Amino acid sequence: MEYYYVPNLNDDIVTLSQEEARHCVRVIRHVAGDAIVMVDGKGLWARGTILATTKDRCQVQVDERKIVENHRVLSLHIAVSPTKNRERVEWFVEKAVEVGIEKITFLLCDHSERLRVDMQRMERIAISAMKQSQSATIPEMDVLAFDALIQGMRNWEGDKMIAWCDADDNSVELADKDLLKNDVLLLIGPEGDFSKREIELAKSENFTEVRLGPKRLRTETAAIYGCCVINSKG
Amino acid sequence: MEYYYVPNLNDDIVTLSQEEARHCVRVIRHVAGDAIVMVDGKGLWARGTILATTKDRCQVQVDERKIVENHRVLSLHIAVSPTKNRERVEWFVEKAVEVGIEKITFLLCDHSERLRVDMQRMERIAISAMKQSQSATIPEMDVLAFDALIQGMRNWEGDKMIAWCDADDNSVELADKDLLKNDVLLLIGPEGDFSKREIELAKSENFTEVRLGPKRLRTETAAIYGCCVINSKG
Repeated sequence: MEYYYVPNLNDDIVTLSQEEARHCVRVIRHVAGDAIVMVDGKGLWARGTILATTKDRCQVQVDERKIVENHRVLSLHIAVSPTKNRERVEWFVEKAVEVGIEKITFLLCDHSERLRVDMQRMERIAISAMKQSQSATIPEMDVLAFDALIQGMRNWEGDKMIAWCDADDNSVELADKDLLKNDVLLLIGPEGDFSKREIELAKSENFTEVRLGPKRLRTETAAIYGCCVINSKG
Repeated sequence: MEYYYVPNLNDDIVTLSQEEARHCVRVIRHVAGDAIVMVDGKGLWARGTILATTKDRCQVQVDERKIVENHRVLSLHIAVSPTKNRERVEWFVEKAVEVGIEKITFLLCDHSERLRVDMQRMERIAISAMKQSQSATIPEMDVLAFDALIQGMRNWEGDKMIAWCDADDNSVELADKDLLKNDVLLLIGPEGDFSKREIELAKSENFTEVRLGPKRLRTETAAIYGCCVINSKG
């Protein structure tokens, strides 16, 4: 059952976007009277009946709305340095939305290889993954410089973690952490890793150093590993 | 430090393949006298000194060899249905080699959308991921029909698991399984899921039904989730 993305599901009668309408009418070939499922990206799921269609327009009566509860108690926020090859971090966004994530920050670090992020493209990828995995929520997404994120989270009371390759003896294996109590923020650095300055800043702001297994992982692999392991503990 | 793939590291003097030599000589610009690191894909790591180079040839004296121990005690085998879009299962191979995996079977199922696998391409992807993640081993890889794999593993004594979307009350969440004792085989089906026939056959051969979290995952996402979670428990 395919899901349609409709940002505003509050009205009794809604209109699909041109892109969604074309898929609905021309590809799937729905007609008036058919039932369809819609999600608003903010946790609302709805069932509706198609009232009218044209080649690129589709009007739907909303019959039923439901709030879709998050399957996890804790909220997961991953901040990841955008990769030089754009596809790699886009792959992460798609997989993270499928597995489960509440917020993604594209983190601009001292050694980041990419400093520009196409947020519209990221949103399209997240919406597509949400629909494909039959869920109703897309993560919040933003772009922030490292220092701005660290300082902005100063008074936040969740579990703050930074993953890096030379994590010392004070570090903890992510897989061993008890993660059931608080919301989680995990920082994943660029291929050149976080700078010493960034690590010191994070430690001074109560970030725990974590390891992501014994092997050296690419940025997007580290991010999806973190996402999978944290979800498996939720 | 880049790694070079040399399938036979047993001789005192080895020659890089044309592809590796070109990268070594023309891209990285190594010259005679330089030290390089080589891996054979079978767990052997070596340090050597370059003896001679031409534009696409490179001869190396092997100075030191080491067997690289697997960081995990248990051996992980994932059998996954090839995806219609070839890139998706290729992403899985790349990520799985980075995170850690001993064997990958491309599993031809009743509902598989792709029945042909380019094994040379998969091997190139695995070698590239091995080098990039600075490890010395590529997984064994093969293609098998579902029934052939199930029956071939009849007398195998490890943990046999099959992941599918409609797993019933007898199923176990992968994240909750105690996986430290035995080798592991995990089956991941196509987008249309395993057929009832395949599930019954697997159950009759002592496969445990497992769930991979509460959300519906694409084939390659399910496979990398399984790989990450099992590695996190190792």
